[in-house]
Amino acid sequence: MARMAPRSQFKIPKIPEMTVRRLSVYTRCLQQLEEDGIKTISSQDLAERFNLNSAQVRKDLAYFGEFGVRGIGYYVSGLKAELQKILGLDREWPVALVGFGNLGSALFHYKGFARQGFRIVAVFDDDPAKHGRLEDGVPIMSLRDLPREVKARGIQIAILAVPAEAAPGVTDRLVASGIKAILNFAPSRLRPPRDVRLKNVDLSIELETLSFYLAQGHR
Amino acid sequence: MARMAPRSQFKIPKIPEMTVRRLSVYTRCLQQLEEDGIKTISSQDLAERFNLNSAQVRKDLAYFGEFGVRGIGYYVSGLKAELQKILGLDREWPVALVGFGNLGSALFHYKGFARQGFRIVAVFDDDPAKHGRLEDGVPIMSLRDLPREVKARGIQIAILAVPAEAAPGVTDRLVASGIKAILNFAPSRLRPPRDVRLKNVDLSIELETLSFYLAQGHR
Repeated sequence: MARMAPRSQFKIPKIPEMTVRRLSVYTRCLQQLEEDGIKTISSQDLAERFNLNSAQVRKDLAYFGEFGVRGIGYYVSGLKAELQKILGLDREWPVALVGFGNLGSALFHYKGFARQGFRIVAVFDDDPAKHGRLEDGVPIMSLRDLPREVKARGIQIAILAVPAEAAPGVTDRLVASGIKAILNFAPSRLRPPRDVRLKNVDLSIELETLSFYLAQGHR
Repeated sequence: MARMAPRSQFKIPKIPEMTVRRLSVYTRCLQQLEEDGIKTISSQDLAERFNLNSAQVRKDLAYFGEFGVRGIGYYVSGLKAELQKILGLDREWPVALVGFGNLGSALFHYKGFARQGFRIVAVFDDDPAKHGRLEDGVPIMSLRDLPREVKARGIQIAILAVPAEAAPGVTDRLVASGIKAILNFAPSRLRPPRDVRLKNVDLSIELETLSFYLAQGHR
């Protein structure tokens, strides 16, 4: 474990995933402030306006540098640009979508991805009837074409929208093809190797934040 | 503002949303431990096993009571049941789904909701061609039927899966019908009244946790 290696390829070690998630939230808040014509903001005002915790904001940002200016606060556009860079949003990421059923199709048309620089450039499905079709100019292909396309298009990120039982096998193929990060919508426990980043999306967690508040209100 | 009112209907004030989100995560970890036959676990072991922060775990749980037992740690099944109760998962919630396009249809068939007790009991869409259809026994109806159905079925939670431009108008109708919590998938800024809880799902945030780690690795 070379945690203190001075020239590790990872400049920033061990950032909690919740911090990363909050960086995304802060970026959206700053975007909104920018649209509203606000140039600078204090961490207190930022926190108050968007219902955040100002100490948390400062702590999260402190992982990455000193962004606040005494007596001024944060420069909205400057901080937004910094956070986008940290999140890798200063570039475009070609993305593979695997599974083109209802969910895959909905994700394909989801506008939010492209807005943040995630461009679905290839779709894979195991149904031969779909192969060769173009969806908004993007080809739907067989999983057999995965290694070739991942290489040719420089794809590092895949979105997995296949049925639960197919997910482990498809994950193996994604890994073998050189995919480095997987956003998984299938309700399966996947175990990619350590150098492949996995993020499971569990939509019921979103509903639970709602039922929590309803349940609290009724007790 | 009766923040200190001794008999407020809200027993637990001001819980950060991130804490609630983590309670959902802990519940899933405990579920997994239970399946693996583990009876008790310390906060340290829990944190290590699931890559959590043990101080954070203790702090989150402390909002709701004293769950740990000195020298033993947490009783897995007992804590899981407590958290489920706190999250409102000890009951079934009838849910309305509004919008039955690709995304709505994918969400309708999403297995995770029912597993946590969220049951979609009515679907609404503005396409008359879909009205009167039953999808797995659940009726697809006109938005005109919303007030009646919300009342008749005791629905408090709605999932919004309509296009962005339709979302504000539909939100007004949901609120007028008596809906108390909205899970919104539309990329719109909605402003329901204060007593209606809104949770916006932004799927691109999930991708950003991946691009963050990829971007960090490449710098």
